[in-house]
Amino acid sequence: MTVIGGATRLYALLGDPIAQVRAPGLLNPVLTRRGTDAVLVPVHVPAAALPDVVAGLRRVANLDGMLVTVPHKAALLGLADRVTDRARLAGSVNALRREPDGTWSADTFDGDGFVRALVAAGHDPRGRRVCLVGAGGAGSAIAVALLDAGVAALHLTDTDPARLAALGGRLSEAYPDRVHGASRPRLADADLAVNATPLGLRPTDPPPFPVAELPARAVVADIIMSPAETPLLRAARDRGLAAHPGEPMLAHQIDGYLDFFGL
Amino acid sequence: MTVIGGATRLYALLGDPIAQVRAPGLLNPVLTRRGTDAVLVPVHVPAAALPDVVAGLRRVANLDGMLVTVPHKAALLGLADRVTDRARLAGSVNALRREPDGTWSADTFDGDGFVRALVAAGHDPRGRRVCLVGAGGAGSAIAVALLDAGVAALHLTDTDPARLAALGGRLSEAYPDRVHGASRPRLADADLAVNATPLGLRPTDPPPFPVAELPARAVVADIIMSPAETPLLRAARDRGLAAHPGEPMLAHQIDGYLDFFGL
Repeated sequence: MTVIGGATRLYALLGDPIAQVRAPGLLNPVLTRRGTDAVLVPVHVPAAALPDVVAGLRRVANLDGMLVTVPHKAALLGLADRVTDRARLAGSVNALRREPDGTWSADTFDGDGFVRALVAAGHDPRGRRVCLVGAGGAGSAIAVALLDAGVAALHLTDTDPARLAALGGRLSEAYPDRVHGASRPRLADADLAVNATPLGLRPTDPPPFPVAELPARAVVADIIMSPAETPLLRAARDRGLAAHPGEPMLAHQIDGYLDFFGL
Repeated sequence: MTVIGGATRLYALLGDPIAQVRAPGLLNPVLTRRGTDAVLVPVHVPAAALPDVVAGLRRVANLDGMLVTVPHKAALLGLADRVTDRARLAGSVNALRREPDGTWSADTFDGDGFVRALVAAGHDPRGRRVCLVGAGGAGSAIAVALLDAGVAALHLTDTDPARLAALGGRLSEAYPDRVHGASRPRLADADLAVNATPLGLRPTDPPPFPVAELPARAVVADIIMSPAETPLLRAARDRGLAAHPGEPMLAHQIDGYLDFFGL
């Protein structure tokens, strides 16, 4: 329940489609509870309109920040004045804020939310060996956040060899000796195995990797939020492994946004 | 109390300054009461940024309309694809909507709200002789609305002879034989005398016209909303004339906006 007056500060969430986004429903009640006179509104932006819309929004004096979702995360890299290293490495941006000097800084919280949720569930990835499957937008952000969180080794796979090589190259340069790309997931000695592919959204999808190959200590994490328990997580649970769902990532991302915007 | 989700439709109120605007506080509770999933947000736009901001907002697919306040009402005339005759005559726009074909139509409700409020208070101006003081933005819109409402004669004055001549010329052409400009207000035979100048905002302001010269049947209307009772209205009441305040104009403007946007 948000009360909007003339002094209300604005945050815009840009995406296409937009009707399914959940951040306004999660963030606005937090702002209301804190007594912050600000609101996050969904802004439906077709890809071709993105430069014009961002140019316009940047000049709105009571708009302090933007969140960005599919399909604009990569394009926003080029529309900010300043981009964090982790966002540049991930190749995507999902939050921009106006700085006191009027310029705009960008960062990404996709991976940050994933790691915060993992830590909150008792699965701190520091020092662990990780097998990450999927080097797309979400996978890239998660890879960077896991490396920043101090994983001992990150084994990356993707069905697209070019995409895998590109991300692997960028990450190897930034995090020497910890990043390994391969055509097949390296499961046998993994402490944590992460699905960052869309496999599992549909009940007929094949599993992104075989949990049978994981050691008994392994944690299996999925970024898919719906269904809450994917076939992968169910298979992990059936084998007696710890299963970490996608849902908490979003709630923990909200904490990242609030910190970033100083709210 | 507004609940904002991904499917919420947007309306933007453009102005500079913006913190004082009251339309979001008036309109949003109406939308909530009606169960309409839409929200009006204040958008602070410096004059130099107006073309960029409007170009951007026009391309936001879930933004269905804009309201416009000081200082953008005249500039918006040139940023819409279609402008009503009354807005062109008034020389200002205060609402734009997206049409089904994606183009943007503009209209003004400043005068419309004034006349709706006057009629609701029992002072239908049809067939009346009106003395209108002030040919600025508000005065121009009110002049057009009074002529559309069927006043018998409209006597206009303004301290700026060029402004008076420009508005008088446009109106005389559109409404032949009913519009008269003069350097002094014609009060002696007025049924309705309207202040559309800023005089009365400050307690030390001189009265915009002398109520003593009005006939006993005259209604005195003021567009100033704060103070609710201006020195002019108090003087009218002291003389036993009907006094019509500025406040109801805004509430009735909201009805005009809702009709225009099909809400």
